[in-house]
Amino acid sequence: MKKHNYSAGPCILPQEVFEKSAEAILNFNNSNLSILEISHRSKDFVSVMDEARSLVLELLGLEGKGYQALFLQGGASMEFLMVPYNLMKVDGKAAYLDTGTWANNAIKEAKLFGETQIVASSKEANYNFIPKDYSIPSDASYFHCTSNNTIFGTQMKSFPETTVPVVCDMSSDIFSRTLDFSKFDLIYAGAQKNMGPAGTTLVVVKEEILGKSGRTIPSILDYEKHIKAESMYNTPAVFPVYASLLTLQWLKNNGGIAAIEKVNEAKANLLYNEIDRNPLFVGTANKEDRSFMNATFLLENETHQETFDKMWKEAGISGLNGHRSVGGYRASMYNALPLQSVQVLVDVMKELENKI
Amino acid sequence: MKKHNYSAGPCILPQEVFEKSAEAILNFNNSNLSILEISHRSKDFVSVMDEARSLVLELLGLEGKGYQALFLQGGASMEFLMVPYNLMKVDGKAAYLDTGTWANNAIKEAKLFGETQIVASSKEANYNFIPKDYSIPSDASYFHCTSNNTIFGTQMKSFPETTVPVVCDMSSDIFSRTLDFSKFDLIYAGAQKNMGPAGTTLVVVKEEILGKSGRTIPSILDYEKHIKAESMYNTPAVFPVYASLLTLQWLKNNGGIAAIEKVNEAKANLLYNEIDRNPLFVGTANKEDRSFMNATFLLENETHQETFDKMWKEAGISGLNGHRSVGGYRASMYNALPLQSVQVLVDVMKELENKI
Repeated sequence: MKKHNYSAGPCILPQEVFEKSAEAILNFNNSNLSILEISHRSKDFVSVMDEARSLVLELLGLEGKGYQALFLQGGASMEFLMVPYNLMKVDGKAAYLDTGTWANNAIKEAKLFGETQIVASSKEANYNFIPKDYSIPSDASYFHCTSNNTIFGTQMKSFPETTVPVVCDMSSDIFSRTLDFSKFDLIYAGAQKNMGPAGTTLVVVKEEILGKSGRTIPSILDYEKHIKAESMYNTPAVFPVYASLLTLQWLKNNGGIAAIEKVNEAKANLLYNEIDRNPLFVGTANKEDRSFMNATFLLENETHQETFDKMWKEAGISGLNGHRSVGGYRASMYNALPLQSVQVLVDVMKELENKI
Repeated sequence: MKKHNYSAGPCILPQEVFEKSAEAILNFNNSNLSILEISHRSKDFVSVMDEARSLVLELLGLEGKGYQALFLQGGASMEFLMVPYNLMKVDGKAAYLDTGTWANNAIKEAKLFGETQIVASSKEANYNFIPKDYSIPSDASYFHCTSNNTIFGTQMKSFPETTVPVVCDMSSDIFSRTLDFSKFDLIYAGAQKNMGPAGTTLVVVKEEILGKSGRTIPSILDYEKHIKAESMYNTPAVFPVYASLLTLQWLKNNGGIAAIEKVNEAKANLLYNEIDRNPLFVGTANKEDRSFMNATFLLENETHQETFDKMWKEAGISGLNGHRSVGGYRASMYNALPLQSVQVLVDVMKELENKI
């Protein structure tokens, strides 16, 4: 029986992505070669990379608007470094919104490059909300935020208006909801939530913001070099890029972001309604800032933990434990998780209530 | 029909690696989950990472000798940067041996950090040999070399004795031949030749050389942080690491490096003997420096190119073209290429001779 996989990432992907990628490992495009043994410079793989890059822009509505999509390596953690290296002006400063662990890690790397101003933080409240009233200094090289916070279950529902370039870590909610993506100047995301398996990192950047920092950038960290090389500056992560393309194709064939957003809303509403209704559970994030990707919640009474854990495991649910730094529960409802899996969880929560 | 795959990398891997990894994508360890959708913190994947790291040290004979093995991201190109960041002392210098394109790229990144002394170079001879008479300054923070040069078909058969730490890019010949690996202080290798598919990078480092540069190192580039986190500082490239483990297990089950070295010697001898015997072909690298991994050669008479290309393609051979920067032919004979595939190529070369 296929599991109801609530893993926070790497996470569930569409079943057809598993099937097609397994097939490509045995025989890619009827070439009698595995996708794992072909040259990244082969015609077949170059067209995978090209299609993946253009499909990203198409799905985000950014075609013909001066953006480039890149498939790099190193995860969002590498972008924490590449962003200031490429964008923070020598003797300039950057503005960061502190909404959780990953925002914090991004801030740490930026501090190596210059003044890093934290414009607002919800740290004192254990990051259970998204700060809203803050101003962004107009002389900042850029403003950086994290659109969704997997550990704390919060999500930015709106983004500040500012004259400085906006950089956003969308690792955990890209491709899950409609936004005006042209308001962002640089978006990055580790693949391993809504885009594909672990091992590649998406960067979408407006070309005009590059080349202005005045820094000497190491080649491998230089966005302009990666753009010039059409995302093949060095050997890309061939298989993760291919599986990402399959996931993007699945999304497009199922109606794109607008269609999946409706499903994601239905899933989130179903679960949050039960968390709010069921007296045994309590949500941890501010209601208005609740993430539609990661719902974090606790048992009101911890003595029920053993019973509840046994019940959801028996129902075929996996990956429901909260992040090791905060405990509790976290239901990650990425694009590929079916509504029916959420119904199974809600049924278990109701069953627990009836039992106690 | 399975191809005779001479691709220079990504390259052929053992057939059982393709089969087992395709299986794991459909159902990993009978968990009813795909290897692509499990958490990197899950017990099952943590044990993949642990086994891969210890198997590397076992195969290299480095267990209990103060080394750590890491599976990082970004390819050798990222190591070109991480090496000077971690090892070049502030106001110190580094010594590099220039044996080809990749050595050159490593030198470029090092120059951003301080004095980078090229102790010897074969550039003037289009890198067709390995320089041997040079001295390494005793005040260098480290000495860097490239053990095998895929593009030019040369390979270091011996390594200099020196008192400074020795760093070696072994991307294209690691696990192919017995060496006293304890003479190296840091070895790195993109996975995509003898270790696995593209998307992960092996770093083997002697811990005692770290923490001495006096530099502030960005977290994601800091070897010590990756060691402390047991190669899970951030989400690793789950699938590429798993497929690498399968490849390392295959190597161990087939007798380890000593056994594969014999096969590699037989393959290289078979092909080089034909290149030297057959009047239609000429090798491009100095004989004593010939790579046992990548044999580079030319047709004496280019008018035979069309005929030859047609013949080897019809024999089921793929990936025989030389690197786009040098042309000609390149037969990459990595660990997983069977001796029989080399016999097929040699037969085609003989056939061409008979035909003309």
